[in-house]
Amino acid sequence: MTPYEELEARFRELSHLGHAGIMLHWDEAVMMPPGGGETRGEAMALLAAISHQRLTHPELAALLDQAEDGDEQLGPWQRANVRAMRRSQRRASAVPESLVRAKRIACTRCEQAWRVARGNGDWPAVSGLLEEVVRLAIEEATALGEVLSLSPYDALLDGYEADTRSAQVAEVFDDLRVFLPPFFHSVFERQKTTPPVPGPVPGPVSAERQHALGEVMMRALGFDFDRGRLDVSHHPFCGGVPDDTRITTRYREENFLGSLMAVLHETGHALYQQGLPPDWCYQPVGSALGMAVHESQSLFVEMQVARSRAFMTFAAPIIREQFSVDGDDRAWSAENLHAKAIQVRRDYIRVDADEVTYPLHIILRFELEQALIAGDLVVGDIPDAWDESMTRYLGLSTRDNLKDGCMQDVHWFAGLFGYFPSYSLGALTAAQWFDAASRANPELEQQIEAGEFGSLIEWLRREIHGRGQLLSAEELLLEVTGERLDARFFKAHLERRYLAD
Amino acid sequence: MTPYEELEARFRELSHLGHAGIMLHWDEAVMMPPGGGETRGEAMALLAAISHQRLTHPELAALLDQAEDGDEQLGPWQRANVRAMRRSQRRASAVPESLVRAKRIACTRCEQAWRVARGNGDWPAVSGLLEEVVRLAIEEATALGEVLSLSPYDALLDGYEADTRSAQVAEVFDDLRVFLPPFFHSVFERQKTTPPVPGPVPGPVSAERQHALGEVMMRALGFDFDRGRLDVSHHPFCGGVPDDTRITTRYREENFLGSLMAVLHETGHALYQQGLPPDWCYQPVGSALGMAVHESQSLFVEMQVARSRAFMTFAAPIIREQFSVDGDDRAWSAENLHAKAIQVRRDYIRVDADEVTYPLHIILRFELEQALIAGDLVVGDIPDAWDESMTRYLGLSTRDNLKDGCMQDVHWFAGLFGYFPSYSLGALTAAQWFDAASRANPELEQQIEAGEFGSLIEWLRREIHGRGQLLSAEELLLEVTGERLDARFFKAHLERRYLAD
Repeated sequence: MTPYEELEARFRELSHLGHAGIMLHWDEAVMMPPGGGETRGEAMALLAAISHQRLTHPELAALLDQAEDGDEQLGPWQRANVRAMRRSQRRASAVPESLVRAKRIACTRCEQAWRVARGNGDWPAVSGLLEEVVRLAIEEATALGEVLSLSPYDALLDGYEADTRSAQVAEVFDDLRVFLPPFFHSVFERQKTTPPVPGPVPGPVSAERQHALGEVMMRALGFDFDRGRLDVSHHPFCGGVPDDTRITTRYREENFLGSLMAVLHETGHALYQQGLPPDWCYQPVGSALGMAVHESQSLFVEMQVARSRAFMTFAAPIIREQFSVDGDDRAWSAENLHAKAIQVRRDYIRVDADEVTYPLHIILRFELEQALIAGDLVVGDIPDAWDESMTRYLGLSTRDNLKDGCMQDVHWFAGLFGYFPSYSLGALTAAQWFDAASRANPELEQQIEAGEFGSLIEWLRREIHGRGQLLSAEELLLEVTGERLDARFFKAHLERRYLAD
Repeated sequence: MTPYEELEARFRELSHLGHAGIMLHWDEAVMMPPGGGETRGEAMALLAAISHQRLTHPELAALLDQAEDGDEQLGPWQRANVRAMRRSQRRASAVPESLVRAKRIACTRCEQAWRVARGNGDWPAVSGLLEEVVRLAIEEATALGEVLSLSPYDALLDGYEADTRSAQVAEVFDDLRVFLPPFFHSVFERQKTTPPVPGPVPGPVSAERQHALGEVMMRALGFDFDRGRLDVSHHPFCGGVPDDTRITTRYREENFLGSLMAVLHETGHALYQQGLPPDWCYQPVGSALGMAVHESQSLFVEMQVARSRAFMTFAAPIIREQFSVDGDDRAWSAENLHAKAIQVRRDYIRVDADEVTYPLHIILRFELEQALIAGDLVVGDIPDAWDESMTRYLGLSTRDNLKDGCMQDVHWFAGLFGYFPSYSLGALTAAQWFDAASRANPELEQQIEAGEFGSLIEWLRREIHGRGQLLSAEELLLEVTGERLDARFFKAHLERRYLAD
């Protein structure tokens, strides 16, 4: 075997270890009874430790050196594969195994406690566990930062977005922080006084019917149920692997549209995962490009496609059929459902937020998590800091409402710091992809209206999904859209959807 | 760390690796979409290989030598732990890693194919895969047999029942082969002509209602839902770990009693697993004693307890309440449900068989699998051999009905050879336990009638579950019941239930 082939064999096994960890995590969130948590945490920590041992083995580093030295022998996919391998190996080697294990156990414990405590905003039940998670995250960030010559926060951010730095993110967010509040105001006033006004509220729908509708919509968009599932969890997510992609949602009878949009959001993630290059499915180059691109796919489906007037024209009759409602009921008309789907409002919950206020929720988290990792904010002060930011950005206080305040998201409790910016970078990227897709296919809107998603999905597969990590996120965006990331596509999209005609 | 402590640390990690494999297997059987099978098989094979590497590591053998040499330092639990560790290490070391991987992949593939093929008895779709499984099982059995100085089949049997040999099993089965056919004839004639005669058939019940009833019954028996679940799978089983015990069943609307009994059977397994000694939960000594004892627990609950007149007196009103049926409906009376639950009949399906014909199903499988492993029967001849044995033992031909013939059980397709005897050894053992439990508690029958299972479960926990592998199965039976395994308890139970009064 050449060094490169030996590397492929080793990373194939790392992918299988990853499979085990990913599936145990899905099970933990969707199936596991609470009593199983302690043992599960230990098992997951061991798998993480074994992967870490293998990634940091001196032989692996030596093989990477050899493969890099002889990389003129390799094709473009193989070269990109070696780059992705090196990135994993460097990041893993920066952190001792003991920290990997300790962090996995602390995060599992804290996430499990959060699931119970969130319901009644029981902050004391999680704040101590979160302190431990933050302590270990800072330790990890500092160790990574030293090796990668980055600030601790940037070292974490780099884990989700290769080569993206907080200064760039801050620049994008500074722009949105100026643009969005007055824009929101205009839209809010307009939705109060000019059509489409929010009409009657569509009635409550059982979880079973919502689930059935979710599956119909997923199938329409090309989700392959032979290689995936839809389930219920506390916090919607997309897990699994390309051949076994698991998305989850949660159902609220009085707000089927929120649950449906969550399903469609996760379907966007799932289409990306199911569309990754099958020939490279066990190699780093065959995995997703980063979380901003991943979120760009979920938001492409949810925000660009599913919340459009065209999509609701297609979806409304199917929704009425699935829910057995009278075709003449105005609450269930395409127009009314679309008005609901694009209604903006100041609200507490990020995952339920409209796309205009959504970035403000992200900016809040981005600011607070930077302060946490820098040690400028301690866990005990999170509730106050959250309340203050929410009041500033959205005019809403979360004092005495931690359930809908700093306890609403799983991320920090699960040890994910540096992830949140991906959502808004993803929203901007999604708008830029959609612009390119529309230019490539002048029939796109009519196709969406007709529920014909084949050529759109085919475009996504060819241009984005099927390329794995062959290019960097920046290169891919440039190649597909002809430009670097630019917020003007997002702004243009908002103006067209919310203020035009 | 002493050598013993070092061993505990290593086996703790082996237990976590086992946890991952067990949960991935549960997921595969209950949740996984078919497209995920190939990757799952590879991941499970890797986990098996890593466990094998660790179990066969020369350092582990050296530590075991040292711990055995210094075993006067150890307490009884620790000594038993070392014995159990040695047993695992010896069995693992007999087989090369390449075979472990190849067998895991072949078994996963064959089991997955069986799930699809069984429904329409599509033998050609699985026979080739089964040939590969049998070939690898023979290879494994031969390698094990050489190291353990056992015949190949005995080497496999020993994996499920330490120190049990096929000659002993054959002796027990020779006895039953003589006793059961005339006994069956007497019961069958009696049930035709004397009360309790089978009364009206209880009507069809939806899977949802059956599921809810199953949960109520499991709870009544002491199943801890904080540490377990009930789900649906193709073939009922009990999986998971003590703190996260997963049982499955399958529902047939026209035969709720069969599904309920399957739930109660698996609940017996589950109570054993949940009752294993918590202080030793990550150590070999803390695991179940062997499959005959495991089956003795499932059959204790299903056959000794749940199919009794006393249990039906307790259960019938609950069943009527759960299914909202009229209290006066004779089909749902305790008497009629009990008559149904003990109705004997010649039938094709092992898992649906009554306890009188059940051992004949096992004897058939025991004979055929011995011939398979000895190389005296080839896979291609299984359908004919099955048909011939079924005709001999039960007067039923399975020609052209492979679905209900040699394709009905998952075991061989999953590579489990040597497992079947455990069911009937378990049935005999269960009768012997129940005799001891009745002697220890003269109120037992009245307690069952009243649905008070607390003291019975407490007895099982104390006498059996909580002892893990502290004693051998033979020692445990002798200590708890005062005797070695003796079929007379089983026969006396059958005569009392089926021919008395």
